[in-house]
Amino acid sequence: MRIRKRPWHEEILNRESTIYIKNPVNLKGRWKTVLNCDILHVEIGAGKGDYAIKMAQMYPNHGFVAIEKVPLIGSYILKKANESIPNLKVIIADANDIAAWFDENEIDIIHLNFSDPWPKKRHHKHRLTTQDFLSDYRKILSDEGKIIQKSDNRTFFEDSCSYLSQNLWILEEISLNFRETEQNYDAISEYEERFIKLGQPIYRAIWRK
Amino acid sequence: MRIRKRPWHEEILNRESTIYIKNPVNLKGRWKTVLNCDILHVEIGAGKGDYAIKMAQMYPNHGFVAIEKVPLIGSYILKKANESIPNLKVIIADANDIAAWFDENEIDIIHLNFSDPWPKKRHHKHRLTTQDFLSDYRKILSDEGKIIQKSDNRTFFEDSCSYLSQNLWILEEISLNFRETEQNYDAISEYEERFIKLGQPIYRAIWRK
Repeated sequence: MRIRKRPWHEEILNRESTIYIKNPVNLKGRWKTVLNCDILHVEIGAGKGDYAIKMAQMYPNHGFVAIEKVPLIGSYILKKANESIPNLKVIIADANDIAAWFDENEIDIIHLNFSDPWPKKRHHKHRLTTQDFLSDYRKILSDEGKIIQKSDNRTFFEDSCSYLSQNLWILEEISLNFRETEQNYDAISEYEERFIKLGQPIYRAIWRK
Repeated sequence: MRIRKRPWHEEILNRESTIYIKNPVNLKGRWKTVLNCDILHVEIGAGKGDYAIKMAQMYPNHGFVAIEKVPLIGSYILKKANESIPNLKVIIADANDIAAWFDENEIDIIHLNFSDPWPKKRHHKHRLTTQDFLSDYRKILSDEGKIIQKSDNRTFFEDSCSYLSQNLWILEEISLNFRETEQNYDAISEYEERFIKLGQPIYRAIWRK
């Protein structure tokens, strides 16, 4: 996603904020307390935050953490959420460090929504479903914890299914056309909406430890 | 598949035959010797045998066993193969007894091609990917053995992926549009050809123990 820099980007990233967690390591082990929730969701690669914001509004008793690597993009989450969503926090940093930010067993659901497919073979190592990430996810997810992946990219989804299975994750559910029927419990981001309108199938899988 | 009974059906089923194995339990532990092969493939639900016959011709050094439950349908395999394919044997019986016919570790590849999806929930227990079948397959497959499933039926394929994963099979490879590119190494049956012509995606997964 290429973003044109606008004056408000810098301003919003530097502003004092209750939603933007600049030092996530400080909340390690305390996310559920801070978010006042029993169920903690983390979205990695949250983009402009449409999914995390909608889900936080749909599930006010759950806590949500939206992680986005690119500051210019992550700043849109801060702008949209506008300090007004008490059960949402935002981390703007590379998820490579995720195991430093969350305690063992701290997270209930990790969402990977339309993650960058990194189609070139030499870039596969950057995918969010590689072995290194999966081993971090295993640590920070609770025993009943789940990874929920959605993608419009067939090859990336296929490869991810193999990565997960080969790293001994168990497939709880898979759908090869998730939006064929209405799924009211799961928010649709603007980004996903575009694929649905194009008639492209949305792939979705739920994996457990 | 509804088949009109013809006079040759009974004749071919009763005839002496080198290809039709009427008491498969007699060959338990000896299939590779009898088929003179190092790699043993078994297709369960072989229908009229188009896939098994083509594969046996493509891989003359591999052994193939085609299993079909319905005698009227299985008789077509005998008719088409016409005693002329030395590396093919046919079993016409319910695969529920498969663990009595093959020794532990005897099979290298189990093929499940376009198996009956049994769409109604109360019929799911008849599917060829249920826990009971999977536990038989685990016994009779070699340590490096694989199940290769192909299907045009999305729900059945999705469910099967969950069954396999939940029974601790490891996904080696998955394709959600297997015939999008040419796959010369894998025969296309007349039955599959129909779905390809309709532009329906063919789903395929390879699982190992």
